[in-house]
Amino acid sequence: MDINALNVLSYEEFVNIFGNVVEKCPIITAAVWSKRPFVNLSALEAAINEFIDALPESGKEGILRCHPDLAGRDLQRGTLTQESREEQARAGLDALESAEASRVARLNEEYKERFGFPFVICARMNDKASILRQLSERCQNERAAERARGIEEVKKICRLRLYGLVLTDAPNKL
Amino acid sequence: MDINALNVLSYEEFVNIFGNVVEKCPIITAAVWSKRPFVNLSALEAAINEFIDALPESGKEGILRCHPDLAGRDLQRGTLTQESREEQARAGLDALESAEASRVARLNEEYKERFGFPFVICARMNDKASILRQLSERCQNERAAERARGIEEVKKICRLRLYGLVLTDAPNKL
Repeated sequence: MDINALNVLSYEEFVNIFGNVVEKCPIITAAVWSKRPFVNLSALEAAINEFIDALPESGKEGILRCHPDLAGRDLQRGTLTQESREEQARAGLDALESAEASRVARLNEEYKERFGFPFVICARMNDKASILRQLSERCQNERAAERARGIEEVKKICRLRLYGLVLTDAPNKL
Repeated sequence: MDINALNVLSYEEFVNIFGNVVEKCPIITAAVWSKRPFVNLSALEAAINEFIDALPESGKEGILRCHPDLAGRDLQRGTLTQESREEQARAGLDALESAEASRVARLNEEYKERFGFPFVICARMNDKASILRQLSERCQNERAAERARGIEEVKKICRLRLYGLVLTDAPNKL
């Protein structure tokens, strides 16, 4: 889909295609539709990031809390969004050994207990070993730093989903 | 559920129960969890309203765009959220006569074309005749006024969903 096609989408089409570039936050996609036309895909990405950055800290935490645990209950139950399922599977998180799975579950709980939001990482830019290492390390951070770090990861996930949709899948969803 | 029970919910439980008090905007529920403890239900409602009011105008439009059309495609296809389905059904919008249905469809399109967001009204505080009359009348408003009016309706819907969950259904969802 080229940028001209994107710019003439109705808000319903736009949200239908791009509504989950930020996990379970279609409000963000729906909001930036107000900013069209976009000169290119980077401009759309920038509008999303700007919207996120303008949110109060509670709103940024709200975004993080809309994310599932990595290798968590939603993966086991099959209730992940399609995007998350694919991302977690590519990183090998759907095939953890029993000891690894227990360790991840324990660290996820520790992280959530400490910060009040889940560990968010761009799974597609990391492999399993790197994800497990960072989960362990980031549990030691300060809360404000970790909130900012989580939001950075949200933006990376968003970018990959956005480019993926525009460059490959979107025509099929139209 | 009393307020003390509400205040000790984890963010996951909180979002699971209250995530759709603003239609398809779990980020709002997830954000206000940061503001607990709440002295009472009004304080929770106020925190939600405050979050909404602090959004940029594009964000308020984003909330409206997350709402389905009244008596629209989602109702016909069975893809409404449970909350919307019940609200639309109570107002009789699931049993329109053919001429009424055509008129509503035409006015919904006219409204969306004019404003770039859907007509939002608290169906539980109106009957079918009143909804159809207001849909027709509100098509004539100015955009800014109509955006503000839509957000007022979002808050009424939110209040009724919130009180409904706390006073009746929530224990079953826990």
